[in-house]
Amino acid sequence: MYNFVLVGTTMCTAGEFSLNDLAGGAGRLDIACRFVNSCFFLSHSLRRNVRCYLHLLGEPEPPKTVLFEGANLRYLNPDERSAGSLIKKALSVDVGEGWARSTPGVYVSGMTFAQLIEALGSDFMVLLSEDGADIRTSRLSASDELTFILGDHRGLPAPLEQHLLERGVDKLSVGPLSLHADHCVVLVLNELDRLEAGWR
Amino acid sequence: MYNFVLVGTTMCTAGEFSLNDLAGGAGRLDIACRFVNSCFFLSHSLRRNVRCYLHLLGEPEPPKTVLFEGANLRYLNPDERSAGSLIKKALSVDVGEGWARSTPGVYVSGMTFAQLIEALGSDFMVLLSEDGADIRTSRLSASDELTFILGDHRGLPAPLEQHLLERGVDKLSVGPLSLHADHCVVLVLNELDRLEAGWR
Repeated sequence: MYNFVLVGTTMCTAGEFSLNDLAGGAGRLDIACRFVNSCFFLSHSLRRNVRCYLHLLGEPEPPKTVLFEGANLRYLNPDERSAGSLIKKALSVDVGEGWARSTPGVYVSGMTFAQLIEALGSDFMVLLSEDGADIRTSRLSASDELTFILGDHRGLPAPLEQHLLERGVDKLSVGPLSLHADHCVVLVLNELDRLEAGWR
Repeated sequence: MYNFVLVGTTMCTAGEFSLNDLAGGAGRLDIACRFVNSCFFLSHSLRRNVRCYLHLLGEPEPPKTVLFEGANLRYLNPDERSAGSLIKKALSVDVGEGWARSTPGVYVSGMTFAQLIEALGSDFMVLLSEDGADIRTSRLSASDELTFILGDHRGLPAPLEQHLLERGVDKLSVGPLSLHADHCVVLVLNELDRLEAGWR
Protein backbone atom coordinates (compact mmCIF):
# COMPACT_ATOMS: atom_id res chain seq x y z
CA MET A 1 0.00 0.00 0.00
CA TYR A 2 1.27 3.44 -0.95
CA ASN A 3 0.10 6.62 0.79
CA PHE A 4 0.57 10.07 -0.74
CA VAL A 5 -0.01 13.16 1.41
CA LEU A 6 -0.33 16.65 -0.09
CA VAL A 7 -0.28 19.62 2.29
CA GLY A 8 -2.36 22.38 0.72
CA THR A 9 -1.46 25.61 2.51
CA THR A 10 -4.11 27.82 0.88
CA MET A 11 -6.68 25.26 -0.24
CA CYS A 12 -10.30 25.85 0.62
CA THR A 13 -11.83 23.80 3.50
CA ALA A 14 -15.55 24.21 2.79
CA GLY A 15 -17.64 22.95 -0.10
CA GLU A 16 -18.85 26.33 -1.30
CA PHE A 17 -16.28 27.01 -4.06
CA SER A 18 -17.07 26.98 -7.78
CA LEU A 19 -15.78 24.15 -9.99
CA ASN A 20 -15.20 26.87 -12.61
CA ASP A 21 -12.68 28.61 -10.35
CA LEU A 22 -10.58 25.84 -8.78
CA ALA A 23 -7.33 27.77 -9.38
CA GLY A 24 -8.71 31.03 -7.98
CA GLY A 25 -11.49 31.21 -5.42
CA ALA A 26 -10.88 27.64 -4.22
CA GLY A 27 -7.34 28.55 -3.07
CA ARG A 28 -5.45 26.49 -5.68
CA LEU A 29 -7.50 23.33 -5.26
CA ASP A 30 -6.57 22.70 -8.93
CA ILE A 31 -3.22 21.49 -7.53
CA ALA A 32 -5.02 18.94 -5.35
CA CYS A 33 -7.14 17.77 -8.29
CA ARG A 34 -4.07 17.04 -10.43
CA PHE A 35 -2.45 15.35 -7.42
CA VAL A 36 -5.44 12.99 -7.14
CA ASN A 37 -5.21 12.24 -10.89
CA SER A 38 -1.52 11.34 -10.61
CA CYS A 39 -2.13 9.08 -7.60
CA PHE A 40 -4.70 6.87 -9.29
CA PHE A 41 -4.81 6.90 -13.07
CA LEU A 42 -3.35 4.17 -15.24
CA SER A 43 -4.22 4.05 -18.92
CA HIS A 44 -7.54 2.29 -18.51
CA SER A 45 -7.72 1.53 -14.81
CA LEU A 46 -7.12 2.89 -11.31
CA ARG A 47 -4.31 2.11 -8.89
CA ARG A 48 -6.23 0.27 -6.17
CA ASN A 49 -3.22 0.08 -3.84
CA VAL A 50 -2.95 3.85 -3.31
CA ARG A 51 -4.42 6.14 -0.69
CA CYS A 52 -4.26 9.88 -1.32
CA TYR A 53 -4.55 12.35 1.57
CA LEU A 54 -5.22 16.03 0.89
CA HIS A 55 -4.39 17.91 4.11
CA LEU A 56 -6.00 21.31 3.54
CA LEU A 57 -5.05 24.38 5.56
CA GLY A 58 -6.98 27.17 3.82
CA GLU A 59 -10.02 29.03 5.11
CA PRO A 60 -12.73 28.75 6.43
CA GLU A 61 -12.42 25.52 8.51
CA PRO A 62 -8.79 24.31 8.65
CA PRO A 63 -7.48 21.74 9.03
CA LYS A 64 -9.42 19.22 6.96
CA THR A 65 -8.09 16.10 5.33
CA VAL A 66 -9.83 14.51 2.35
CA LEU A 67 -8.88 10.87 1.80
CA PHE A 68 -9.23 9.09 -1.57
CA GLU A 69 -8.89 5.35 -1.07
CA GLY A 70 -8.11 3.49 -4.31
CA ALA A 71 -9.55 0.17 -3.13
CA ASN A 72 -13.09 1.56 -2.86
CA LEU A 73 -12.95 4.63 -5.09
CA ARG A 74 -15.79 5.32 -7.54
CA TYR A 75 -16.97 8.20 -9.74
CA LEU A 76 -13.44 9.59 -10.32
CA ASN A 77 -12.59 10.68 -13.87
CA PRO A 78 -9.21 12.09 -14.93
CA ASP A 79 -10.25 15.73 -15.43
CA GLU A 80 -9.77 18.36 -12.73
CA ARG A 81 -13.49 19.05 -12.41
CA SER A 82 -14.16 15.39 -11.56
CA ALA A 83 -11.73 15.31 -8.62
CA GLY A 84 -12.88 18.84 -7.71
CA SER A 85 -16.48 17.68 -7.53
CA LEU A 86 -15.62 14.80 -5.16
CA ILE A 87 -13.53 17.14 -2.97
CA LYS A 88 -16.39 19.65 -2.89
CA LYS A 89 -18.81 16.95 -1.71
CA ALA A 90 -16.36 15.78 0.97
CA LEU A 91 -15.85 19.33 2.24
CA SER A 92 -19.62 19.64 2.72
CA VAL A 93 -19.68 16.76 5.24
CA ASP A 94 -19.51 17.45 9.00
CA VAL A 95 -16.13 16.40 10.39
CA GLY A 96 -14.60 15.18 13.65
CA GLU A 97 -11.26 13.53 14.43
CA GLY A 98 -12.27 10.25 12.74
CA TRP A 99 -13.12 9.62 9.08
CA ALA A 100 -16.58 10.51 7.80
CA ARG A 101 -17.59 8.91 4.48
CA SER A 102 -18.59 11.22 1.67
CA THR A 103 -18.85 9.18 -1.56
CA PRO A 104 -17.54 5.61 -2.22
CA GLY A 105 -13.82 5.65 -1.39
CA VAL A 106 -13.79 9.31 -0.29
CA TYR A 107 -13.63 10.32 3.38
CA VAL A 108 -13.02 13.49 5.35
CA SER A 109 -11.61 14.29 8.79
CA GLY A 110 -10.72 17.30 10.92
CA MET A 111 -7.57 15.71 12.36
CA THR A 112 -4.35 17.70 12.71
CA PHE A 113 -1.21 17.01 10.66
CA ALA A 114 0.45 15.32 13.65
CA GLN A 115 -2.62 13.10 14.16
CA LEU A 116 -2.65 12.20 10.47
CA ILE A 117 1.02 11.22 10.39
CA GLU A 118 0.58 9.21 13.60
CA ALA A 119 -2.42 7.38 12.14
CA LEU A 120 -0.54 6.43 8.96
CA GLY A 121 2.09 4.45 10.88
CA SER A 122 4.05 3.45 7.74
CA ASP A 123 7.13 1.22 7.53
CA PHE A 124 8.92 3.94 5.61
CA MET A 125 8.02 7.61 5.46
CA VAL A 126 9.47 9.91 2.80
CA LEU A 127 9.48 13.68 2.50
CA LEU A 128 9.85 14.59 -1.18
CA SER A 129 12.29 17.47 -1.31
CA GLU A 130 14.70 19.08 -3.79
CA ASP A 131 17.59 18.52 -1.36
CA GLY A 132 16.82 14.85 -0.76
CA ALA A 133 18.82 11.84 -1.97
CA ASP A 134 18.06 10.48 -5.44
CA ILE A 135 15.04 8.15 -5.27
CA ARG A 136 16.68 5.85 -7.84
CA THR A 137 19.46 4.96 -5.41
CA SER A 138 17.26 4.78 -2.31
CA ARG A 139 16.37 1.72 -0.26
CA LEU A 140 12.68 1.75 -1.22
CA SER A 141 10.99 -1.63 -1.34
CA ALA A 142 7.75 -1.96 -3.26
CA SER A 143 6.42 -4.50 -0.76
CA ASP A 144 6.43 -2.07 2.16
CA GLU A 145 3.70 0.22 3.39
CA LEU A 146 5.17 3.49 2.12
CA THR A 147 4.13 7.09 2.77
CA PHE A 148 5.25 10.06 0.65
CA ILE A 149 4.62 13.61 1.83
CA LEU A 150 4.67 16.62 -0.50
CA GLY A 151 4.15 20.35 -0.25
CA ASP A 152 2.22 22.58 -2.65
CA HIS A 153 3.35 25.69 -4.57
CA ARG A 154 4.36 27.36 -1.28
CA GLY A 155 6.30 24.35 0.01
CA LEU A 156 5.71 22.47 3.25
CA PRO A 157 5.20 24.81 6.26
CA ALA A 158 8.35 24.81 8.43
CA PRO A 159 6.67 23.46 11.61
CA LEU A 160 5.26 20.52 9.66
CA GLU A 161 8.65 19.75 8.10
CA GLN A 162 10.22 19.98 11.55
CA HIS A 163 7.65 17.53 12.90
CA LEU A 164 8.53 15.04 10.16
CA LEU A 165 12.27 15.39 10.61
CA GLU A 166 11.90 14.76 14.35
CA ARG A 167 10.10 11.53 13.48
CA GLY A 168 13.10 10.50 11.35
CA VAL A 169 11.57 10.58 7.87
CA ASP A 170 13.83 10.15 4.84
CA LYS A 171 14.24 13.01 2.38
CA LEU A 172 14.22 11.90 -1.25
CA SER A 173 14.33 13.79 -4.54
CA VAL A 174 12.90 12.68 -7.88
CA GLY A 175 15.23 14.69 -10.11
CA PRO A 176 17.53 17.69 -10.53
CA LEU A 177 14.74 20.28 -11.05
CA SER A 178 12.00 21.50 -8.74
CA LEU A 179 8.67 20.08 -9.95
CA HIS A 180 4.95 20.31 -9.28
CA ALA A 181 3.60 17.88 -6.68
CA ASP A 182 1.51 15.92 -9.22
CA HIS A 183 4.54 15.42 -11.46
CA CYS A 184 6.54 14.15 -8.45
CA VAL A 185 3.83 11.55 -7.75
CA VAL A 186 4.07 10.28 -11.35
CA LEU A 187 7.82 9.84 -10.93
CA VAL A 188 7.55 8.09 -7.55
CA LEU A 189 4.91 5.66 -8.81
CA ASN A 190 7.01 4.89 -11.90
CA GLU A 191 9.92 4.04 -9.61
CA LEU A 192 7.67 1.72 -7.59
CA ASP A 193 6.20 0.16 -10.78
CA ARG A 194 9.74 -0.57 -11.94
CA LEU A 195 10.69 -2.09 -8.58
CA GLU A 196 7.61 -4.32 -8.62
CA ALA A 197 8.26 -5.43 -12.22
CA GLY A 198 12.01 -5.92 -11.77
CA TRP A 199 12.71 -3.18 -14.36
CA ARG A 200 14.90 -1.03 -12.19
CA MET B 1 14.96 21.52 -28.20
CA TYR B 2 12.36 18.87 -27.32
CA ASN B 3 9.16 18.39 -29.31
CA PHE B 4 6.16 16.52 -27.94
CA VAL B 5 3.34 15.53 -30.28
CA LEU B 6 -0.04 14.34 -29.01
CA VAL B 7 -2.46 12.84 -31.53
CA GLY B 8 -6.00 13.53 -30.32
CA THR B 9 -8.32 11.19 -32.16
CA THR B 10 -11.60 12.64 -30.90
CA MET B 11 -10.57 16.14 -29.87
CA CYS B 12 -12.64 19.08 -31.07
CA THR B 13 -11.21 21.20 -33.93
CA ALA B 14 -13.29 24.38 -33.58
CA GLY B 15 -13.36 26.96 -30.81
CA GLU B 16 -17.01 26.57 -29.89
CA PHE B 17 -16.71 24.13 -26.98
CA SER B 18 -17.36 25.04 -23.33
CA LEU B 19 -14.46 25.27 -20.88
CA ASN B 20 -16.85 23.67 -18.36
CA ASP B 21 -17.09 20.52 -20.50
CA LEU B 22 -13.54 19.81 -21.74
CA ALA B 23 -13.88 16.08 -20.97
CA GLY B 24 -17.28 15.78 -22.64
CA GLY B 25 -18.45 18.04 -25.45
CA ALA B 26 -14.89 19.04 -26.40
CA GLY B 27 -14.04 15.40 -27.27
CA ARG B 28 -11.58 14.78 -24.42
CA LEU B 29 -9.65 18.02 -24.85
CA ASP B 30 -8.98 17.66 -21.09
CA ILE B 31 -6.29 15.14 -22.11
CA ALA B 32 -4.62 17.76 -24.31
CA CYS B 33 -4.77 20.34 -21.49
CA ARG B 34 -2.95 18.04 -19.08
CA PHE B 35 -0.46 17.20 -21.83
CA VAL B 36 0.35 20.90 -22.23
CA ASN B 37 0.79 21.23 -18.45
CA SER B 38 3.26 18.33 -18.37
CA CYS B 39 5.26 19.73 -21.29
CA PHE B 40 5.94 23.11 -19.71
CA PHE B 41 5.55 23.39 -15.97
CA LEU B 42 8.43 23.42 -13.55
CA SER B 43 7.84 24.44 -9.95
CA HIS B 44 7.98 28.18 -10.55
CA SER B 45 8.89 28.50 -14.21
CA LEU B 46 8.25 27.16 -17.71
CA ARG B 47 10.39 24.87 -19.83
CA ARG B 48 11.42 27.26 -22.60
CA ASN B 49 13.13 24.53 -24.66
CA VAL B 50 9.92 22.58 -25.35
CA ARG B 51 7.43 22.72 -28.21
CA CYS B 52 4.13 20.94 -27.75
CA TYR B 53 2.06 19.95 -30.80
CA LEU B 54 -1.59 18.93 -30.38
CA HIS B 55 -2.61 17.18 -33.60
CA LEU B 56 -6.41 17.12 -33.36
CA LEU B 57 -8.56 14.79 -35.45
CA GLY B 58 -12.07 15.35 -34.05
CA GLU B 59 -14.96 17.18 -35.69
CA PRO B 60 -15.79 19.63 -37.21
CA GLU B 61 -12.61 20.69 -39.08
CA PRO B 62 -9.89 17.99 -38.84
CA PRO B 63 -6.97 17.95 -38.96
CA LYS B 64 -5.78 20.93 -36.94
CA THR B 65 -2.53 21.22 -35.04
CA VAL B 66 -2.15 23.65 -32.14
CA LEU B 67 1.47 24.45 -31.31
CA PHE B 68 2.60 25.74 -27.90
CA GLU B 69 6.14 27.09 -28.16
CA GLY B 70 7.88 27.41 -24.78
CA ALA B 71 10.30 30.12 -25.89
CA ASN B 72 7.51 32.62 -26.53
CA LEU B 73 4.65 31.25 -24.48
CA ARG B 74 2.56 33.59 -22.33
CA TYR B 75 -0.72 33.47 -20.38
CA LEU B 76 -0.44 29.74 -19.57
CA ASN B 77 -1.33 28.68 -16.03
CA PRO B 78 -1.19 25.08 -14.76
CA ASP B 79 -4.93 24.40 -14.56
CA GLU B 80 -6.84 22.64 -17.35
CA ARG B 81 -9.09 25.64 -18.00
CA SER B 82 -6.05 27.84 -18.72
CA ALA B 83 -4.64 25.55 -21.44
CA GLY B 84 -8.22 24.95 -22.62
CA SER B 85 -8.78 28.67 -23.04
CA LEU B 86 -5.62 29.06 -25.18
CA ILE B 87 -6.59 26.05 -27.30
CA LYS B 88 -10.09 27.47 -27.75
CA LYS B 89 -8.66 30.77 -29.00
CA ALA B 90 -6.30 28.99 -31.40
CA LEU B 91 -9.13 26.87 -32.80
CA SER B 92 -11.04 30.06 -33.61
CA VAL B 93 -8.27 31.27 -35.97
CA ASP B 94 -8.51 30.61 -39.74
CA VAL B 95 -5.94 28.00 -40.78
CA GLY B 96 -3.90 27.00 -43.84
CA GLU B 97 -0.87 24.72 -44.22
CA GLY B 98 1.46 27.19 -42.47
CA TRP B 99 1.34 28.42 -38.86
CA ALA B 100 -1.11 31.18 -37.91
CA ARG B 101 -0.41 32.96 -34.63
CA SER B 102 -3.17 32.97 -32.02
CA THR B 103 -1.73 34.29 -28.72
CA PRO B 104 1.97 34.75 -27.76
CA GLY B 105 3.67 31.38 -28.30
CA VAL B 106 0.51 29.66 -29.57
CA TYR B 107 0.00 28.87 -33.26
CA VAL B 108 -2.41 26.78 -35.34
CA SER B 109 -2.19 25.00 -38.68
CA GLY B 110 -4.30 22.74 -40.89
CA MET B 111 -1.35 20.57 -41.98
CA THR B 112 -1.67 16.78 -42.15
CA PHE B 113 0.16 14.40 -39.81
CA ALA B 114 2.67 13.52 -42.55
CA GLN B 115 3.33 17.23 -43.21
CA LEU B 116 3.80 17.87 -39.48
CA ILE B 117 6.29 15.02 -39.05
CA GLU B 118 8.17 16.14 -42.17
CA ALA B 119 8.34 19.72 -40.87
CA LEU B 120 9.74 18.64 -37.49
CA GLY B 121 12.85 17.05 -39.06
CA SER B 122 14.34 15.95 -35.73
CA ASP B 123 17.67 14.21 -35.13
CA PHE B 124 15.88 11.49 -33.22
CA MET B 125 12.19 10.66 -33.34
CA VAL B 126 10.55 8.46 -30.71
CA LEU B 127 7.17 6.78 -30.59
CA LEU B 128 6.21 6.24 -26.96
CA SER B 129 4.71 2.77 -26.79
CA GLU B 130 4.13 0.03 -24.18
CA ASP B 131 6.10 -2.42 -26.33
CA GLY B 132 9.10 -0.13 -26.80
CA ALA B 133 12.56 -0.51 -25.28
CA ASP B 134 13.16 0.97 -21.80
CA ILE B 135 13.90 4.70 -22.10
CA ARG B 136 16.47 4.41 -19.28
CA THR B 137 18.69 2.19 -21.42
CA SER B 138 18.13 4.08 -24.70
CA ARG B 139 20.65 6.13 -26.66
CA LEU B 140 18.91 9.46 -25.99
CA SER B 141 21.17 12.49 -25.82
CA ALA B 142 19.85 15.65 -24.19
CA SER B 143 21.75 17.83 -26.64
CA ASP B 144 19.84 16.59 -29.69
CA GLU B 145 16.68 17.92 -31.25
CA LEU B 146 14.31 15.22 -30.04
CA THR B 147 10.70 14.50 -30.96
CA PHE B 148 8.37 12.28 -28.92
CA ILE B 149 5.02 11.18 -30.34
CA LEU B 150 2.16 9.91 -28.19
CA GLY B 151 -1.38 8.69 -28.67
CA ASP B 152 -4.43 9.52 -26.57
CA HIS B 153 -6.87 7.22 -24.73
CA ARG B 154 -7.64 5.39 -28.00
CA GLY B 155 -3.98 4.96 -28.96
CA LEU B 156 -2.28 6.15 -32.13
CA PRO B 157 -4.35 5.40 -35.29
CA ALA B 158 -2.77 2.47 -37.19
CA PRO B 159 -2.04 4.42 -40.44
CA LEU B 160 -0.19 7.10 -38.45
CA GLU B 161 1.86 4.50 -36.56
CA GLN B 162 2.65 2.80 -39.88
CA HIS B 163 3.81 6.14 -41.32
CA LEU B 164 6.18 6.63 -38.37
CA LEU B 165 7.57 3.09 -38.52
CA GLU B 166 8.30 3.51 -42.25
CA ARG B 167 10.32 6.60 -41.34
CA GLY B 168 12.38 4.51 -38.93
CA VAL B 169 11.33 6.02 -35.60
CA ASP B 170 12.45 4.34 -32.38
CA LYS B 171 9.87 2.83 -30.04
CA LEU B 172 10.54 3.53 -26.38
CA SER B 173 8.63 2.77 -23.19
CA VAL B 174 8.69 4.71 -19.92
CA GLY B 175 7.74 1.85 -17.62
CA PRO B 176 6.04 -1.52 -17.16
CA LEU B 177 2.46 -0.18 -17.02
CA SER B 178 0.35 1.61 -19.63
CA LEU B 179 0.03 5.27 -18.62
CA HIS B 180 -1.78 8.46 -19.62
CA ALA B 181 0.03 10.62 -22.19
CA ASP B 182 0.63 13.50 -19.74
CA HIS B 183 2.23 11.13 -17.23
CA CYS B 184 4.51 9.76 -19.98
CA VAL B 185 5.69 13.31 -20.76
CA VAL B 186 6.63 13.86 -17.10
CA LEU B 187 8.71 10.68 -17.17
CA VAL B 188 10.44 11.53 -20.47
CA LEU B 189 11.34 15.04 -19.30
CA ASN B 190 12.68 13.69 -16.02
CA GLU B 191 14.93 11.34 -18.00
CA LEU B 192 16.18 14.29 -20.07
CA ASP B 193 16.63 16.46 -16.95
CA ARG B 194 18.76 13.70 -15.45
CA LEU B 195 20.83 13.35 -18.63
CA GLU B 196 21.46 17.10 -18.73
CA ALA B 197 22.43 17.21 -15.06
CA GLY B 198 24.56 14.05 -15.15
CA TRP B 199 22.20 12.33 -12.67
CA ARG B 200 21.40 9.30 -14.73
